[in-house]
Amino acid sequence: MQYHFSDRISTLKPSAIREIFKYAADPAVVSLSAGNPAPDAFAKEQIGEIVRDIFATRPIDALQYSVTEGYPQLRAFIRDYMLSRHNVGRDFDDVLVTSGAQQIMELSAKVLCNEGDVVICEDPSFIGSLNCFRSLGAKLKGVPVDPDGMNMEKLAEVLKDTPSARFIYTIPNFQNPSGITMSLEKRRTMYALAKQYGVLIVEDNPYGDLRYSGENLPNIKSFDEEGLVIYSGSYSKVIAPGLRVGYCVAPAEIIKKMVVGKQGEDVHTNILAQMICYEFMTRYDFDENLANLRALYRRKAQFAMELLDRYVVPHGITYHPIEGGLFIWCTLPESVDMADFCKRAVADYKVAIVPGNAFLCDEKGTSHCFRINFSTPSDEKLEEGIKRLGTFAATVLNA
Amino acid sequence: MQYHFSDRISTLKPSAIREIFKYAADPAVVSLSAGNPAPDAFAKEQIGEIVRDIFATRPIDALQYSVTEGYPQLRAFIRDYMLSRHNVGRDFDDVLVTSGAQQIMELSAKVLCNEGDVVICEDPSFIGSLNCFRSLGAKLKGVPVDPDGMNMEKLAEVLKDTPSARFIYTIPNFQNPSGITMSLEKRRTMYALAKQYGVLIVEDNPYGDLRYSGENLPNIKSFDEEGLVIYSGSYSKVIAPGLRVGYCVAPAEIIKKMVVGKQGEDVHTNILAQMICYEFMTRYDFDENLANLRALYRRKAQFAMELLDRYVVPHGITYHPIEGGLFIWCTLPESVDMADFCKRAVADYKVAIVPGNAFLCDEKGTSHCFRINFSTPSDEKLEEGIKRLGTFAATVLNA
Repeated sequence: MQYHFSDRISTLKPSAIREIFKYAADPAVVSLSAGNPAPDAFAKEQIGEIVRDIFATRPIDALQYSVTEGYPQLRAFIRDYMLSRHNVGRDFDDVLVTSGAQQIMELSAKVLCNEGDVVICEDPSFIGSLNCFRSLGAKLKGVPVDPDGMNMEKLAEVLKDTPSARFIYTIPNFQNPSGITMSLEKRRTMYALAKQYGVLIVEDNPYGDLRYSGENLPNIKSFDEEGLVIYSGSYSKVIAPGLRVGYCVAPAEIIKKMVVGKQGEDVHTNILAQMICYEFMTRYDFDENLANLRALYRRKAQFAMELLDRYVVPHGITYHPIEGGLFIWCTLPESVDMADFCKRAVADYKVAIVPGNAFLCDEKGTSHCFRINFSTPSDEKLEEGIKRLGTFAATVLNA
Repeated sequence: MQYHFSDRISTLKPSAIREIFKYAADPAVVSLSAGNPAPDAFAKEQIGEIVRDIFATRPIDALQYSVTEGYPQLRAFIRDYMLSRHNVGRDFDDVLVTSGAQQIMELSAKVLCNEGDVVICEDPSFIGSLNCFRSLGAKLKGVPVDPDGMNMEKLAEVLKDTPSARFIYTIPNFQNPSGITMSLEKRRTMYALAKQYGVLIVEDNPYGDLRYSGENLPNIKSFDEEGLVIYSGSYSKVIAPGLRVGYCVAPAEIIKKMVVGKQGEDVHTNILAQMICYEFMTRYDFDENLANLRALYRRKAQFAMELLDRYVVPHGITYHPIEGGLFIWCTLPESVDMADFCKRAVADYKVAIVPGNAFLCDEKGTSHCFRINFSTPSDEKLEEGIKRLGTFAATVLNA
């Protein structure tokens, strides 16, 4: 049988990442390519306690069908928490619990974009979101990222030239993959531009709570008096990603349409996972959990940057120092073929890194960058991996 | 802010069901409109035991990111089980675990249909699937359902006249809403027609294990030597719907595309829920669990049909006797305005039933039917609800 697939799916090429992952299955390979939380980061005793408790007292609640909008207690909690902690949420906003924040990107594109409509993205940006927009037939327009966030002159130009732009997709904090955080000034400018052009903003903030140094900056959604911003939060990095629980704060009118879309996707998010998140946030001291998590990652991030300084930077590779998040973005000298570098790193030197072009709006574009992750590997693996990268860089770059 | 929604979402009208559900929130209303498993149907002790065990022995596995394809042990189990029990699955097939079977419909349409392509559906059919196809821009063509399943002459005609048809969507066992089961002969004919026209079949089988009388019939997928059938199974009715775990057996080439789609939707299905399903299926006697479940529902189905015979049928309403599933499909005399009947039933007589036009491919079409569910209400509620329906029918139909 010869299958005919939809245009939206056929055009999705198996990404460069997948090729790297094939090698990464080799146990001899040190993987710096994942984006998983550290195993030590999970509050497994607390979650175990919660789960035992739920099955002892209200198992049926955890097993029966539930409503698409989300576990009511969790929705109410998120509404209060986001308002009191982050000044996020106005009277016109509502909360939707989703199956991971990924579903918020999917629903945003499904609800807001006809095929051929444009989503404006940071370039580079999170591959999962880019592919998701593509899979719904949206076209991507990339705007370069400066060290203080998306280039606002270019954004203004693109908005002016693109009447079919439906929303701007941004990860303002510790962006994946670049690690860059958008300045307060640029956050205000982006909001003003969105308002001027009547284009929405999808603010994806999975790493916001993972700041290791510097000052917290307000979310773009906190400026939103006009109903322009769809805010996407996630419990993946602060509780556990396997639960697949994200949440969206957005104008009620948009949430209503997202609910219709979500009904057709998965009816509702696993209810036990929603109950776990609610209990975790309300029964324990979340700030203390977060402080532990930050301490763990702060140390690992610091260690990773020290290792890069020691083994890799001397050979001409630079990186963007990070203040939070899980990734470090490295840049090769222009003389080096990045794709070839990444392929040889894993094939010959057994260290897996992610080639930068995987994150481009136009995957055929040129990138001299690669991404490494420091949260998943143990200290020993991290050191071994970065050492190997240094050894390889020495042969390539000092040749 | 004036929002512009995508055509695919804007055209989805809030369904007639939703209006009924608004009334159904009134505690005085007896709801025969849901489709939930009976609370007694959940093996809550066994599931509680499994969950305690998982958190005692391998909590990290249940909390960390996992692969999009599904928990490897569960996938392997499903492959073996479906082959040995149902002769479903060939060498060219693969298994994908999804966030409920709903996601299989979503991924099928996303992967196979361009906007404007046609999905051929039983008319009436499951509203969740119909809306999901619509939300991806697919057009629906309905084929009437005879007492032994989809009308094959009409199906042949539609296939002949519709070169843009991408797949036939069918619920062969105890169809929702009609309760009808497709005969073996029609199953073979449907497969032959699909082969003749090079169109795929999406076989949705959430109720297959819930047969209360009569002989099991083979799944259409069991005939599939050509790779034409996407089989959709679900643990919602036989373990618990709140877990949101479904599974798809389909040609590996199609599964590969579905995986790309699923990555953009929710990355992977909640991993704890997948582990629960695997443990439940392998650690306990599933056949014994199923026998208990069938006994429970057989009794309730029998009871519901007796009540209909006693209170409702004498007033001129007929119903299709069922051999399985969770729903009974009732037909009003043509003289009665069905929509008005359903609305007055809930508003004035406090019994919620689902108007038949909600299940039509063309929601503006005419239906003289309504659907009742017998699995969710207690015996007392069921009797009270059907009594009220009878009282109302008496006033309307004997007037």
